[in-house]
Amino acid sequence: MATISIVHFSGSGHTTKMAEAVVQGAASVPGVTAQLVTINGDDINKGRYKNDDVFKQLDASDAIIFGSPTYMGGPAAQFKAFADASAERWFRGGWRDKVSAGFTVSGSPSGDKLSTLHYFFTLAMQHGMIWVGMAESPYNDKGINRLGSFSGAMGQAGQEPTDVAPNAADKHTGELLGQRVATVALKLKR
Amino acid sequence: MATISIVHFSGSGHTTKMAEAVVQGAASVPGVTAQLVTINGDDINKGRYKNDDVFKQLDASDAIIFGSPTYMGGPAAQFKAFADASAERWFRGGWRDKVSAGFTVSGSPSGDKLSTLHYFFTLAMQHGMIWVGMAESPYNDKGINRLGSFSGAMGQAGQEPTDVAPNAADKHTGELLGQRVATVALKLKR
Amino acid sequence: MATISIVHFSGSGHTTKMAEAVVQGAASVPGVTAQLVTINGDDINKGRYKNDDVFKQLDASDAIIFGSPTYMGGPAAQFKAFADASAERWFRGGWRDKVSAGFTVSGSPSGDKLSTLHYFFTLAMQHGMIWVGMAESPYNDKGINRLGSFSGAMGQAGQEPTDVAPNAADKHTGELLGQRVATVALKLKR
Amino acid sequence: MATISIVHFSGSGHTTKMAEAVVQGAASVPGVTAQLVTINGDDINKGRYKNDDVFKQLDASDAIIFGSPTYMGGPAAQFKAFADASAERWFRGGWRDKVSAGFTVSGSPSGDKLSTLHYFFTLAMQHGMIWVGMAESPYNDKGINRLGSFSGAMGQAGQEPTDVAPNAADKHTGELLGQRVATVALKLKR
Repeated sequence: MATISIVHFSGSGHTTKMAEAVVQGAASVPGVTAQLVTINGDDINKGRYKNDDVFKQLDASDAIIFGSPTYMGGPAAQFKAFADASAERWFRGGWRDKVSAGFTVSGSPSGDKLSTLHYFFTLAMQHGMIWVGMAESPYNDKGINRLGSFSGAMGQAGQEPTDVAPNAADKHTGELLGQRVATVALKLKR
Repeated sequence: MATISIVHFSGSGHTTKMAEAVVQGAASVPGVTAQLVTINGDDINKGRYKNDDVFKQLDASDAIIFGSPTYMGGPAAQFKAFADASAERWFRGGWRDKVSAGFTVSGSPSGDKLSTLHYFFTLAMQHGMIWVGMAESPYNDKGINRLGSFSGAMGQAGQEPTDVAPNAADKHTGELLGQRVATVALKLKR
Repeated sequence: MATISIVHFSGSGHTTKMAEAVVQGAASVPGVTAQLVTINGDDINKGRYKNDDVFKQLDASDAIIFGSPTYMGGPAAQFKAFADASAERWFRGGWRDKVSAGFTVSGSPSGDKLSTLHYFFTLAMQHGMIWVGMAESPYNDKGINRLGSFSGAMGQAGQEPTDVAPNAADKHTGELLGQRVATVALKLKR
Repeated sequence: MATISIVHFSGSGHTTKMAEAVVQGAASVPGVTAQLVTINGDDINKGRYKNDDVFKQLDASDAIIFGSPTYMGGPAAQFKAFADASAERWFRGGWRDKVSAGFTVSGSPSGDKLSTLHYFFTLAMQHGMIWVGMAESPYNDKGINRLGSFSGAMGQAGQEPTDVAPNAADKHTGELLGQRVATVALKLKR
């Protein structure tokens, strides 16, 4: 049995749609429990995030997948506040050897989303986690990984309603990321 | 005449020391006014930064230099909240063609500080700004740019008192960054 | 008068098409001479690039714009061999204060092109150059900066003929980068 | 049983010293075979790398650890030529799910080494590999990870003889990276 947490912030709901797809992909792997964890702006006071329940959930997980929109070329400040609060775990190596991965959503096809994924990776490395990316070729007829991202999953959404964007292909891409992380986490736990 | 704003967040005061050195360097250039702008956690509500006076100061500046400690592999959440709030300027190209630069402080010699500088650069590019880095060779006997950083200035400080770290060499490095940015901003304004 | 060199490697010709557009944009600015400089694999011996004429052209330029396809998540090895050979200029600060910028081409919309642009930036910073990015919003009806890149210009091309890809919008994007670099270089030279 | 390949380029021998330490660390794990693979400039013709034996060794490995000096802000061109040649494996997903990691050496404490490690990571993600970083806190009295690097191992060496630099602490750091990669590779292979 392995537990996968998908911890994300979403401003307009598009990233939550992507997060739900990642959860679904992880949960589809037999022996895996996947849970959606939401970073809430209400838990941020003067720029500092505090929510002990969220951290307890993550501490008890075998894999943590990070998700955020790309705002101004990086993860949302709300996500960063959560990341800064994880420093306590950093000091004692609390997340060492957990599996990690990431996904992000923004309006244009490329749009500095790689910068956000690189930040998630850098955060995971600070924690001594093991990183799993998006191992799907963009060359297929289903739109899987259509944007061509390898470090993690990318979805595209601007001002569209959340039932339209990210589109089915992007959500399918997210699903495959969740599935892959779950498979690796299970293998490492055996 | 050119106006240079050094906008920074500091958690423990070390980054403020570095910021003051950058201000001093910029102010040393004839024809330049340099001002220290501080991002205050009190201006962040649920992860969103709001301070119209700060943005008015920056709108009226010819160059903006970004500063933050490196927390968990990136800029502090408080800085990121400020960056996210700059999206309003992004929409209307308000900072286009301003000169930009950055500096960061953390405990170890390397320590993912480059990730923070790369984020500052990415933010500046989103705004259509012009980036000026650290053009000093680390091979000198004064400790200038002793850590070997080119994208911006790096200072080192952990738990030491703020009158000890960042050390004189790091502050001198910051001064030279301020000076260089001021010189370029003046040239572009002629 | 300002001289702008667009130095690029191209494997299949797509990046040359993009480079020509950048040249055209730079040359459209009154008072600017723009020249296409090509990195040739024949000048690489055991992984080391040597071509004194190329370096003399660049030494005499006010701005250098770097271009390469994105291969395996970064600039082509041929470009990197050229970059490594520029170390001689690095030692004596030969390119300090020149204006710099970059563009890249690859098959998918995002596809780690930002990693290549970030490398060009890092190279420019090593040299103490001043970086100028892509200051065009992707939200327009002409396809300008349609991929959403700010650190430099991105073009998309896979196996298509070079008269088809990169497409007109991408080449127009490259043109605007050339124009902007030329404008900044002229201003700094006054 | 797991096979770990440490594939590296070295210009002046310092990176080979680091590579040997990584090999030693990997080989110290029971059930693991570790081999040093060297990228030779002689195998590069007009910027293109070709050596079928090297690729056969890597194809047969459970983990591949990348190593290169940091030249002009990124991996050496010789390493990049090798990386470009790995595109054939990329097309058919030949390295998918292998474990990956990286290390680099340069003259100053920080010095854009993170840019090289980020490139190694980006390359590994293109291949669908699983990334393992440096999970050692820099806060210890043995100099382990003294430079403060998490994405991979960093060593420092300039013009010193190779028996002096990288120093014992940096080599010990490399050893721990090799050990960690070997442990993860074994677990995933069970």
